[in-house]
Amino acid sequence: MVAATQSLQELSINSIRFLAVDAVEKAKSGHPGLPMGAAPMAYVLWNQFMRFNPKNPKWFNRDRFILSAGHGCMLQYALLYLTGYDSVTIEDIKQFRQWGSKTPGHPENFETEGVEVTTGPLGQGIANGVGLAVAEAHLAATFNKPDATIVDHYTYVILGDGCNMEGVAGEACSIAGHWGLGKLIALYDDNHISIDGSTDVAFTEDVSKRFEAYGWHVLHVPNGNTDLDAIAKAIEEAKKVTDKPTMIKVTTTIGYGSPNKQDTAGVHGAALGTDEVALTRKNLGWNYEPFDIPQDVLSHMNKAEQGASYEAEWDQAFAAYKAKYPAEAAEFERYLSGQLPDGWDKDLPKFTPDDDGLPTRKHSAAILNILAPVLPELIGGSADLTHSNLTELKVSGDFQKGEYANRNVHFGVREHGMGAICNGISLHGSGLIPYGATFLIFTDYMRASIRLSALSQVGAIWVMTHDSIGQGEDGPTHQPVEVLASLRAIPDLTVFRPADGNECSGAYKVAVEKAKAHAPSLLAFTRQKVPNLPGTSMEGVAKGAYPIVDCDGTPDIILMGTGSEVSLCVAAAEKLTGEGKKVRVVSMPSWELFEAQDEAYKESVFPKAVTKRLSVEAGVSFGWSKYVGPEGYSVSIDTFGASAPGGTCMEKFGFSVDNVLAKAKAVLG
Amino acid sequence: MVAATQSLQELSINSIRFLAVDAVEKAKSGHPGLPMGAAPMAYVLWNQFMRFNPKNPKWFNRDRFILSAGHGCMLQYALLYLTGYDSVTIEDIKQFRQWGSKTPGHPENFETEGVEVTTGPLGQGIANGVGLAVAEAHLAATFNKPDATIVDHYTYVILGDGCNMEGVAGEACSIAGHWGLGKLIALYDDNHISIDGSTDVAFTEDVSKRFEAYGWHVLHVPNGNTDLDAIAKAIEEAKKVTDKPTMIKVTTTIGYGSPNKQDTAGVHGAALGTDEVALTRKNLGWNYEPFDIPQDVLSHMNKAEQGASYEAEWDQAFAAYKAKYPAEAAEFERYLSGQLPDGWDKDLPKFTPDDDGLPTRKHSAAILNILAPVLPELIGGSADLTHSNLTELKVSGDFQKGEYANRNVHFGVREHGMGAICNGISLHGSGLIPYGATFLIFTDYMRASIRLSALSQVGAIWVMTHDSIGQGEDGPTHQPVEVLASLRAIPDLTVFRPADGNECSGAYKVAVEKAKAHAPSLLAFTRQKVPNLPGTSMEGVAKGAYPIVDCDGTPDIILMGTGSEVSLCVAAAEKLTGEGKKVRVVSMPSWELFEAQDEAYKESVFPKAVTKRLSVEAGVSFGWSKYVGPEGYSVSIDTFGASAPGGTCMEKFGFSVDNVLAKAKAVLG
Repeated sequence: MVAATQSLQELSINSIRFLAVDAVEKAKSGHPGLPMGAAPMAYVLWNQFMRFNPKNPKWFNRDRFILSAGHGCMLQYALLYLTGYDSVTIEDIKQFRQWGSKTPGHPENFETEGVEVTTGPLGQGIANGVGLAVAEAHLAATFNKPDATIVDHYTYVILGDGCNMEGVAGEACSIAGHWGLGKLIALYDDNHISIDGSTDVAFTEDVSKRFEAYGWHVLHVPNGNTDLDAIAKAIEEAKKVTDKPTMIKVTTTIGYGSPNKQDTAGVHGAALGTDEVALTRKNLGWNYEPFDIPQDVLSHMNKAEQGASYEAEWDQAFAAYKAKYPAEAAEFERYLSGQLPDGWDKDLPKFTPDDDGLPTRKHSAAILNILAPVLPELIGGSADLTHSNLTELKVSGDFQKGEYANRNVHFGVREHGMGAICNGISLHGSGLIPYGATFLIFTDYMRASIRLSALSQVGAIWVMTHDSIGQGEDGPTHQPVEVLASLRAIPDLTVFRPADGNECSGAYKVAVEKAKAHAPSLLAFTRQKVPNLPGTSMEGVAKGAYPIVDCDGTPDIILMGTGSEVSLCVAAAEKLTGEGKKVRVVSMPSWELFEAQDEAYKESVFPKAVTKRLSVEAGVSFGWSKYVGPEGYSVSIDTFGASAPGGTCMEKFGFSVDNVLAKAKAVLG
Repeated sequence: MVAATQSLQELSINSIRFLAVDAVEKAKSGHPGLPMGAAPMAYVLWNQFMRFNPKNPKWFNRDRFILSAGHGCMLQYALLYLTGYDSVTIEDIKQFRQWGSKTPGHPENFETEGVEVTTGPLGQGIANGVGLAVAEAHLAATFNKPDATIVDHYTYVILGDGCNMEGVAGEACSIAGHWGLGKLIALYDDNHISIDGSTDVAFTEDVSKRFEAYGWHVLHVPNGNTDLDAIAKAIEEAKKVTDKPTMIKVTTTIGYGSPNKQDTAGVHGAALGTDEVALTRKNLGWNYEPFDIPQDVLSHMNKAEQGASYEAEWDQAFAAYKAKYPAEAAEFERYLSGQLPDGWDKDLPKFTPDDDGLPTRKHSAAILNILAPVLPELIGGSADLTHSNLTELKVSGDFQKGEYANRNVHFGVREHGMGAICNGISLHGSGLIPYGATFLIFTDYMRASIRLSALSQVGAIWVMTHDSIGQGEDGPTHQPVEVLASLRAIPDLTVFRPADGNECSGAYKVAVEKAKAHAPSLLAFTRQKVPNLPGTSMEGVAKGAYPIVDCDGTPDIILMGTGSEVSLCVAAAEKLTGEGKKVRVVSMPSWELFEAQDEAYKESVFPKAVTKRLSVEAGVSFGWSKYVGPEGYSVSIDTFGASAPGGTCMEKFGFSVDNVLAKAKAVLG
């Protein structure tokens, strides 16, 4: 493998390899194996195919790149540095995996410009890639004109064996095949090594055949280590197939070039060690010091000029488009700006207690359909529960192959895939607001994606119905009890459990605004009917918790609740008041929003002096101590539920006015 | 379709159909479509192939049956009733989906004898089936002798389109193909309808080809509605292939027989309605009243006699085995009894503060290897993190195709599949103790299975390492912060975060005992080294929380913590004591065990009079209010983590003796 005089190609590829090797060595931590093996395909892809502008990483029409095998992030940092991004300098690479660096241990879109999505948890990246391709297809179908194209880019993904073992990847790739997303091109780094050793120990399926079964166009590059032409030819072929996503299996050697460690799990996730680094340098004929990259390579790989010309070309195309289609151009610009249209929220409905009650999922359905015409960037659907979640936008048709302008997405029974795809749609960065729906209990299936939506600043709305044992007959497998608590524990996720129509309006208002501000919300709605309550308001929801029923002076007791149980508090308060007690009822649609208020507001809602407190929520008591305090009590369900009509479940588990009243009296003593 | 005189077969199949139709009609809730379409395959399977004894549902060597499409549970209840189980009477069927009934809305193993596993959350059942087949293969390889077979049964699964869309099913089926589990036979009810309508809207992949890619033997019955011979022939063929699991795609019509609703989503999950029920009766020539089953059918389908003879035959075989192999037979009987061997825990290690500290994951590794020789029923492994989780049993080899007696299971990067497979291994009911390992953060990927382990009384041990930001460089995607809270919220799951070697021993002791008592435990271990502490003990762990450092009289302050942060409390307490304060340190390895103690014990640990309290845990504060109270404070991390060396992360986020000391002083005022 020693090359006395290496070609510029070889030098470039070795530059990627040794940036990875040396950064990991310096950090004494990281994953050199993947970058060493995948450097050739990455080089060909970035040098010959990818269209992007390193000086404007957010240029709209760039090709998107995802390293789904995020542990190999030094590959991506090397590419960002070598192609001329300002976000990753050689000093940043020297700070790999250190506090405050731009080069964390896995790629983080919120830390490093040029990184499109946050990867590391395996399988998420390829599924995000499906979302990026959905966004591209949808925007192209929405805005492009027969004589003017402004949306036209590819989504490239490098994924590994680990990603291909994960169910979330399978789910997303199955639906990507169904949708025929021709501009999604995945390069599968087939290095047949995972952490436990050879993939022979646990992964012997025929991956190519599986992707064919999904409806993908599948290619194979048998020698991904040195056959750059074959890699290039495969990518060209992939681009020619426009009605199917392509999976290119690129067979490589993990840790390529390390004489004693290549093709072993030992090179996957640990520094090579001083001796082996020296041997690898010798083996690959690399005579440069750590972090010293030949100027020829830097010039050859720098894409600043080319990128500027791509962008200028697109600017021209967009200017022509704008001249011909000013209204569409203005709307497109609004999308990209992240702005909401003026008055978007003016028709959000308001209710009084005289209005008939409804299940909050029906309020949600009504609101989604009020928003759909004024927010054309709203796109989403359900994991095969469309008519239970009530998430259909009546103004639009189904997003299907060749019908990409439509906005009703059928994700199939693929909650996890749905989550990751929605994350990708948002992280396309074009102002789209994705929403994904299932039963609240099945957030468990997609929790890794919900967490990533919070971590990676995704503006998604998670629409979750059947939010308690009140869902009834389906029984404990379908009845969330611990789910609200488990979601409230996730940082940077705002959870809403609205009590009635006004609170549903308020929740959507905040959720849409947060989506535009790159933060996810999760809305929990009832299956069953709830009354419209006195005192509820959109403004109240925005504060997270607020009194809806109050008394003169200091309350004897504060009753607090969320969602369907607030009405129990109101009814109990009425009885207690009739018995001469001073009662406040606090509706708490969102703990996170309440915690974000100032101390004065918090004290005004829950005065320290009022120690008699009762919470009512059809979920576990976990977490409520913070609000009820040591003298309070939580009406809760700290066991699993049961199969029976919803009303029976609520009654039997203590969610009745009588029980709330009894417990309130016990607290009052 | 009208049959003037129906054959006994037709009558039997229609009995299944109308039990489902009428039970759903009576409940006004449920899923008639699947039972109506899958009745023929279920009839053939249960009547012609399945070996079981309805009068002893727990007979060890029975064939196992799982209805992975659990919403169609009336199919299973009908089969249990018709074949003569006592667990489901006709009165029970009339109570379908009612409070306290034996016929809940999805099959629940803990409610209804004859139901092997709890299904409903889609994809779990087929993955549990892989676990049952693993258990069978392992026990057969362990106990059978060339001249004596005592373990020899099939695992049959009926799954639907929904299951086949779920990632968890794909993960489990991929590894099942790898393992070549020949006695796993899945019947795929290919009715091309899911809740959103035709599978054309979201599920057009070639499922058979995908299963071939997994290495399965795949068959197709094109007419599953009436071609009973083809169904029987396919099952026969499936049984002949002993080195691969078989997937039989059985094409059916959902809601078969309902003239206006069959082959539509309308029959999936709602009662047919009075008129359509009448039309369906007419159409299928069914002249019986609701819940009235012809005596001929009851006699024909009753398996009490046949089952008794199967069992008697096996009893004889076991008696012969016992005569020849008394030691093995005794051990086999111990397995089935659920008893632990005498003195199994006597070598669990104990430590003093003079012993060198270790990462708790290393204590875990040592303990697993101390237990492995004395608990041969311990079987498990990691989702491709064997050498990070340190879960290898050195006494055994790898569980692989043809090497089924081995106990080290490589699950591949398939956390969710691992969870469901472990659940299946436990629910085989033969005393095996499965364990599954990954990084704590990736419990998010398998949360649905962990929840089901708690709900369905699975004796599994979840071994989770890298339990905080202390894991370091991998960064926030790999650093759990909210995970402990989210797991503590799950009912009936016992979560442990041991602080040192003694507490690791104590945690495993309880976890193993709980496994035998059909309850899951989750153990969270550090990546990084922690010291051995004063006062820790196995006995203390069993109480969940206990003082490890104490003062005379009433403490001025109680410092409490878990895992790696307990040592910070101990160090801070030492300094505070030096400054004349009276300090108690409470180690809280398991909140659940503490909550199970009596009030007197709880008061003794956390006296109400001591209101100055500080908790220290490298996770979110969510939930800690219960213990620190309104005057206390939680040293916590309520944001996501960061990529940096673990020690740096801990220090920067405030997990240092100095910060604990400062916060303790602030609490003291």
